[in-house]
Amino acid sequence: MNIDVLFLSHEVEPDVVKGRTAVVIDVLRATTTIATALFQGAEAVYPVAGVDEARQLSAQYPVAVLGGERGGLPPEGFHAGNSPLEYTKEKVTGRPVVLTTTNGTKALRRTIDAGAEAVATGALVNADAVAQWAMGRATDLTIVCAGTEEKFGLEDAVGAGCIVAACIRKGATASLTDSAFVALTLWERYQDRPADVFKDSFHGRRLEKLGFAHDLAYCAEVDSVPVVPLWRGGRLVAL
Amino acid sequence: MNIDVLFLSHEVEPDVVKGRTAVVIDVLRATTTIATALFQGAEAVYPVAGVDEARQLSAQYPVAVLGGERGGLPPEGFHAGNSPLEYTKEKVTGRPVVLTTTNGTKALRRTIDAGAEAVATGALVNADAVAQWAMGRATDLTIVCAGTEEKFGLEDAVGAGCIVAACIRKGATASLTDSAFVALTLWERYQDRPADVFKDSFHGRRLEKLGFAHDLAYCAEVDSVPVVPLWRGGRLVAL
Repeated sequence: MNIDVLFLSHEVEPDVVKGRTAVVIDVLRATTTIATALFQGAEAVYPVAGVDEARQLSAQYPVAVLGGERGGLPPEGFHAGNSPLEYTKEKVTGRPVVLTTTNGTKALRRTIDAGAEAVATGALVNADAVAQWAMGRATDLTIVCAGTEEKFGLEDAVGAGCIVAACIRKGATASLTDSAFVALTLWERYQDRPADVFKDSFHGRRLEKLGFAHDLAYCAEVDSVPVVPLWRGGRLVAL
Repeated sequence: MNIDVLFLSHEVEPDVVKGRTAVVIDVLRATTTIATALFQGAEAVYPVAGVDEARQLSAQYPVAVLGGERGGLPPEGFHAGNSPLEYTKEKVTGRPVVLTTTNGTKALRRTIDAGAEAVATGALVNADAVAQWAMGRATDLTIVCAGTEEKFGLEDAVGAGCIVAACIRKGATASLTDSAFVALTLWERYQDRPADVFKDSFHGRRLEKLGFAHDLAYCAEVDSVPVVPLWRGGRLVAL
């Protein structure tokens, strides 16, 4: 299995991902939230780039949960922010979720638009499930880190490494690019204390200051949400 | 001191480096070679992007040494490749060097064009000297990794980390971005055995196969070439 990691979503170009299997990662918090919403029974997640676009799409689905954040907080009139803990069974079961987030949605859109053959989203909470899915279908895997505001984000690199490690643990004979090797190395540094990633990460420290310590603890619960959010028909659904 | 590391040269944009002090890194081998040529007495190094451009510029300076590589090997009619070992005192003293390389020159040009206030080149061989220079002039330092063919390159990230470590060792109270933190982490992994970086790096393994094992050993000699190649008046000169 050939595994590549793109540390920045603006590395995504057709020649890099076209026809490949791709996993998009935004550990804090979009892809953790997407996994959670689907695991708790949401019918589908519609990731959209803009706040207005999210409002318009949500208006088409009267039962939709409209969620997302700008600068870590929910825009006016939204039903939920980007905290995975808000996406409870009571709130989301059987309902579509329209989600707009700063970094994760952009990375996902770029990856889809660049022509990846199959796209799922991954995070620490569903690393093992996503690795299992990728190994079952592909010999080439590209993991795309959303990063934070177009910059390298430690937590996404570590999340990518967690998926690489899961592939290897499941028996993949992996050929790693330099970036995949580094992601794995970073994961090995944190594997016994994953929550510490967020202490060393700019985005983690910012969320801590904004009062999201509970989110951070949840986002660090490796393999606690065994679902694969798969891009199908313009939305993410649970595999 | 605020230290940022850009793992890919296409992250270089005016809003990221304008007015800042920048160090461009291409450990294998452009910036190792540049440091060596200047240390051995070259009058200046003219880094240019294209092979034809290099030939034209070289024709203007009859004494110039025309050097560089494509795919690791010197183009036809060149006096030297991109091996630092070719840039001996006998060959370069008092002469300008026109150098074209695939990744390093591109990264340097992008950094200069984006408006960095001061630009030097760094490598493992001159990490300490470059750190000393940067600390003496700036509170904001951006280290730009050339990477390999627009992809993340392990050896440049480790080289960046070596410079970050030197700044900290010299007493800088450093505020690190996530990428600078990762670079430092990678350097700490290899600091007791720097040559091993090239075994784990795609570019290192490729050069090994091409027969450049001596180059790799040389490029791993930390702080053996105490010179700061500084961009001044359209060329690199020794500080």
